[in-house]
Amino acid sequence: MERTMTSQGAGRPEVPSRVDFQVHPDRYRHWRLSCDGPVATLTMDVDADGGLVPGYELKLNSYDLGVDIELYDAVQRLRFEHPEVRAVVITSGKDKVFCAGANIRMLAASPHPWKVNFCKFTNETRNAIEDATAYSGQVYLAAVNGAASGGGYELALACDHIMLIDDRSSAVSLPELPLLGVLPGTGGLTRLVDKRHVRRDLADYFATRAEGIGGRKAVQWRLADEAVPRARWQETVAERAAELAGRARRPEGARGVELTTLDKTRTDGEISYRHVSARLDRGRGVAEITVGGPDTPVPADMAEAAGQGAAFWTLAMTRELDDLILDLRTNEPELGTWVLRTRGDAARVLDCDRLLLDAADTGPDGRAGPDRWLAGEIAGYLKRTLKRLDVTSRSMIALIEPGSCFAGSLLELALAADRSFQLSGVFETAPPNAGDPGADPAAITVGPMNLGPLPMANGLTRLQSRFYGDDVALAEAEKRAGEPLQAADAESLGLVTFAPDDIDWDEEVRIAIEERASFSPDALSGLEANYRFAGPETLETKIFGRLSAWQNWIFNRPNASGPDGALRRYGTGQRPDFDRKRV
Amino acid sequence: MERTMTSQGAGRPEVPSRVDFQVHPDRYRHWRLSCDGPVATLTMDVDADGGLVPGYELKLNSYDLGVDIELYDAVQRLRFEHPEVRAVVITSGKDKVFCAGANIRMLAASPHPWKVNFCKFTNETRNAIEDATAYSGQVYLAAVNGAASGGGYELALACDHIMLIDDRSSAVSLPELPLLGVLPGTGGLTRLVDKRHVRRDLADYFATRAEGIGGRKAVQWRLADEAVPRARWQETVAERAAELAGRARRPEGARGVELTTLDKTRTDGEISYRHVSARLDRGRGVAEITVGGPDTPVPADMAEAAGQGAAFWTLAMTRELDDLILDLRTNEPELGTWVLRTRGDAARVLDCDRLLLDAADTGPDGRAGPDRWLAGEIAGYLKRTLKRLDVTSRSMIALIEPGSCFAGSLLELALAADRSFQLSGVFETAPPNAGDPGADPAAITVGPMNLGPLPMANGLTRLQSRFYGDDVALAEAEKRAGEPLQAADAESLGLVTFAPDDIDWDEEVRIAIEERASFSPDALSGLEANYRFAGPETLETKIFGRLSAWQNWIFNRPNASGPDGALRRYGTGQRPDFDRKRV
Repeated sequence: MERTMTSQGAGRPEVPSRVDFQVHPDRYRHWRLSCDGPVATLTMDVDADGGLVPGYELKLNSYDLGVDIELYDAVQRLRFEHPEVRAVVITSGKDKVFCAGANIRMLAASPHPWKVNFCKFTNETRNAIEDATAYSGQVYLAAVNGAASGGGYELALACDHIMLIDDRSSAVSLPELPLLGVLPGTGGLTRLVDKRHVRRDLADYFATRAEGIGGRKAVQWRLADEAVPRARWQETVAERAAELAGRARRPEGARGVELTTLDKTRTDGEISYRHVSARLDRGRGVAEITVGGPDTPVPADMAEAAGQGAAFWTLAMTRELDDLILDLRTNEPELGTWVLRTRGDAARVLDCDRLLLDAADTGPDGRAGPDRWLAGEIAGYLKRTLKRLDVTSRSMIALIEPGSCFAGSLLELALAADRSFQLSGVFETAPPNAGDPGADPAAITVGPMNLGPLPMANGLTRLQSRFYGDDVALAEAEKRAGEPLQAADAESLGLVTFAPDDIDWDEEVRIAIEERASFSPDALSGLEANYRFAGPETLETKIFGRLSAWQNWIFNRPNASGPDGALRRYGTGQRPDFDRKRV
Repeated sequence: MERTMTSQGAGRPEVPSRVDFQVHPDRYRHWRLSCDGPVATLTMDVDADGGLVPGYELKLNSYDLGVDIELYDAVQRLRFEHPEVRAVVITSGKDKVFCAGANIRMLAASPHPWKVNFCKFTNETRNAIEDATAYSGQVYLAAVNGAASGGGYELALACDHIMLIDDRSSAVSLPELPLLGVLPGTGGLTRLVDKRHVRRDLADYFATRAEGIGGRKAVQWRLADEAVPRARWQETVAERAAELAGRARRPEGARGVELTTLDKTRTDGEISYRHVSARLDRGRGVAEITVGGPDTPVPADMAEAAGQGAAFWTLAMTRELDDLILDLRTNEPELGTWVLRTRGDAARVLDCDRLLLDAADTGPDGRAGPDRWLAGEIAGYLKRTLKRLDVTSRSMIALIEPGSCFAGSLLELALAADRSFQLSGVFETAPPNAGDPGADPAAITVGPMNLGPLPMANGLTRLQSRFYGDDVALAEAEKRAGEPLQAADAESLGLVTFAPDDIDWDEEVRIAIEERASFSPDALSGLEANYRFAGPETLETKIFGRLSAWQNWIFNRPNASGPDGALRRYGTGQRPDFDRKRV
């Protein structure tokens, strides 16, 4: 990670000038990843001096964004590089401490946007752990070999099975409320009642008890799945990991795909990769993102795709997009509008989609073959990356122009956007030659990728969310799958928002973008967070929509973050001074 | 309403020292209620000089809490006092203006807790309108006879049918985001996409267009159900109201029950009614609430209960509890913990419950008879009042002591609480005489009221929410219905949190209450809002949990409420000065 610092003004806390999300196990400072056949172990052993920003020590396995970036990297690599791994043990390399959660001095010193962005990323990483357990046949086991407090316990809560060492001192706890005046920020409250079915009054008591609960009572209250005496700890963890690995579904004899270093160039005005680029327009507060379609022939089958490895278009494009989202979210908070374009051959995009979907179908034995698992992993990664877009607090506007390839998986970008514009006809001002890209009117194509494999966090496809409550319109749109739809058709089917022609295009698009930049950024975040998730709610939407919104509010209140608030006074020996009005 | 003012300090806005929620149509300043057979008309005609607090004029049918208190009163009275009414037309008495929403100067000048409490009450009143439509056979029709903006349009969105006058000037709009930098605070965003199924990109565009959308396009986009030319307005409204009334189910030939003035005494230290009382302990920040069971013999049948009218225990107790909740929420924000006790005869509580439930069953024709409708109305009112508890930002602790009557409908109080304590055995220190209330150990009784008729906003009963995901425990508890359960049984069934005996009682309860008062009030609000609603989400839980949390955050941000924020600068001619960082 880059570690250049920037001061935000006198007395203001510091944040890194730029955070890099690209890491590699060889360079981890805080985690050790070891694989032993079907069982991998992720050992958290945080380097106290390895914080992203000076001014705090990462004691007791507490973490900051840098620590979590390594965890995210490990979770990703396990899926792609280790097809043989079926169980992942998360444990601590420290004595008597599993993990103390997010570093409090870091939180106390961070400006509000940094805290919120940090929590969002850590939430996404916890979700990635659950996703790997549910969809990738890599079951996570928390081997809590010491005190797990706050975010430390929340990390365990993301695992499928929680083992707690029973040594009369180790406990799990959520001390945020009594000690810091904030909520556990990484899904803890929601997972307690909605996932682990801890009774709400017990969960209430638990969240007020800073010292936590250990041993048998932790198991009785469902806070952990088993309490294991220290004497039998190692063998029981190994036993349980083997059991979980035995139940998991992963391919036999497959070769992993190495997630090679991304070819990324970053200047002050542009970020570019092989397929994805973004022009950063600070004057207008806009990032103009372009995603390119496959620029080489599509592999004939998954074996050939696997041979391409990380260079296979869907995987390469997804990794680039994922990195770009994280980069812009963290490093460019003032670019409030993301304009989404695509460029390339729609047929090739659809071919790549088909390759993945055909291969991902599991055989009658329910086991994925050597090619199939990879197809599933790639589609799953695309799903998670698009979910990242959905919870991104930026306005997104899709521009569908001649030469674009909003089809199948890339159509999801337009469906994820808050609004879309599709050009009716072609640009008359600079007509291309026939046969050039851009010579034909823009078209979008609904493909099989839009009909199920890429659900949003609410469990619906983006099409289902779009037409929530209007089954007729949904059926009409789905019926046209495979057909390139020009602007008039796409608009009347409700697949795009507006379809101006060349005469109106510039003006309409310009106004939409300029207007967006004139609105309150906070109100936009709230508006989009509410509109993007119509219909049913899930653990994930509850964490991002309900819990995070409350946490953001609390973070912003003087009782937490003011000079006399609990977060700022923690560790000073002074008690916080609360405004006692209940709101 | 009382209108004494209190200054909150130099330069701080003023709020009324105490708000009274008891009003009567004879004294309405802002609404006219008229009934014509099965159709009632509620005409909004706000007295611009009738604000609760000086400093703002309620122009253009804009509203403050006082206006909404009258609306709530009217919705309640229509259900109880007007069994003949089957359709309610909400319209405006002003020319060309339906309603301009919440008064902006009031919002801009109000402190944060006041804004949040105001939004909560207005949300509850909109929900009450939908509840009357769904469960009471009183269908609401919005006759939008002029511009409906912001909260004005949200009021229409709570109605079952929206008619918009088509006069080339009247439009519906949600201008909060572009003009004020906040969200529509009364469920508008959620109702657009989740109730009316407006497509999210159109909803996005709509919420950025301050001037709104009228006429045919409003109907095409589902923002309204019909657009009616001015020339045919009156007759079409009458026609539509008659149609809706014809479809609605209300009793034939029933007599209404007058909601007489509550017998309420309020001093600085106590609020008391006939059955309900609260001791206000400002030193400890606690309201000690006691709800009394029926103190007279239970009526033999619903006809006798109807004869008692507003004096019938369940109705009287519910009205008192409702008023107390509103009073404490609005006037006593520093009493952060509510201790809930009951006192009386559990058998009588269960008898009242049975009376209501037996009578409320509709006959084979699906129509409620003259007694039945009233039983349904009373149970429905209790349901709404308990829901008010669920969304109240106060910690609730139920104390189940000898002499209490936590049975059936009153057991819901303990189930709504964040924690409950049931005394094991009796108080040894001051042993009562045999036969006295308090001589026997405390017991709780699950009754039929706990098994369905009083669902929470999430659609589950409080028992189902409590045992969410643990069907075995739920079945065990339900199986014991009808049986008085002493502390040990209740605790092992999971119906109470703790069951200390006399020796530990005082200490445990004292610590729980004192501890609560020491925590951050904001973090407690967030904790409780997340724990209280496990499981499924509905329009209501989304409005209170997701939308309101975002709105609270935005209200608290400098971009809205700071000196240069949009809310404060509105109408000054100065543009707001935004921190452009997206959070």
